[in-house]
Amino acid sequence: MKVRVEVRLKPGVLDPAAATILRSLHRLGFDDVQDLVQVRAFEVDIAKVRPEDALADARAMADQLLANPVIETYRLDLVE
Amino acid sequence: MKVRVEVRLKPGVLDPAAATILRSLHRLGFDDVQDLVQVRAFEVDIAKVRPEDALADARAMADQLLANPVIETYRLDLVE
Repeated sequence: MKVRVEVRLKPGVLDPAAATILRSLHRLGFDDVQDLVQVRAFEVDIAKVRPEDALADARAMADQLLANPVIETYRLDLVE
Repeated sequence: MKVRVEVRLKPGVLDPAAATILRSLHRLGFDDVQDLVQVRAFEVDIAKVRPEDALADARAMADQLLANPVIETYRLDLVE
C-alpha cells in the first residue's frame, strides 16, 4: 500500500525559506502572490495488505522520524 | 485563489536524502517499507479572480523559480 505523509509547520512557526521564496516571486514581478506555504511530503510504499496496518505504520514513522512534533504537524492519506 | 505546486524529481534522478531516510526507517524496524519518494509542495495564494489566471501565474512561477526543469517535474492543482 502507498501512504502519503504530508508534513507542514504548525501555525505560528516562522518559515524563513518560504519568506525568501515569496520575496523572490515579488522581485520577479509576481505581485499578486499574497502568501506562500511550503510543505514536505513522503510517499511511502509499505508491504502491508490491510490499509489500517499501513496507516498505523506510517503514523509511527511520522512520529519517530518524518516529522518534528515540536514544530510540525502531519496528515496521512492512503494513495493506493 | 490558492494553487498548489507539487514538485518532484524526474524518474531516474537519484535522491540521496530519500535513500538515507529509507535506510533510517529500516534501522528503526520498519522493515515493510519498500520505497520512499520525497515531494516538495508550495501552496501559493494568488490575488486573481479567474482560476485560469491563477493557474497561469503558478505555472510561470514554477517554470522560473519553484522547480528546476532540468531534474524536476511539477503539477498544479487549484486548492480553492
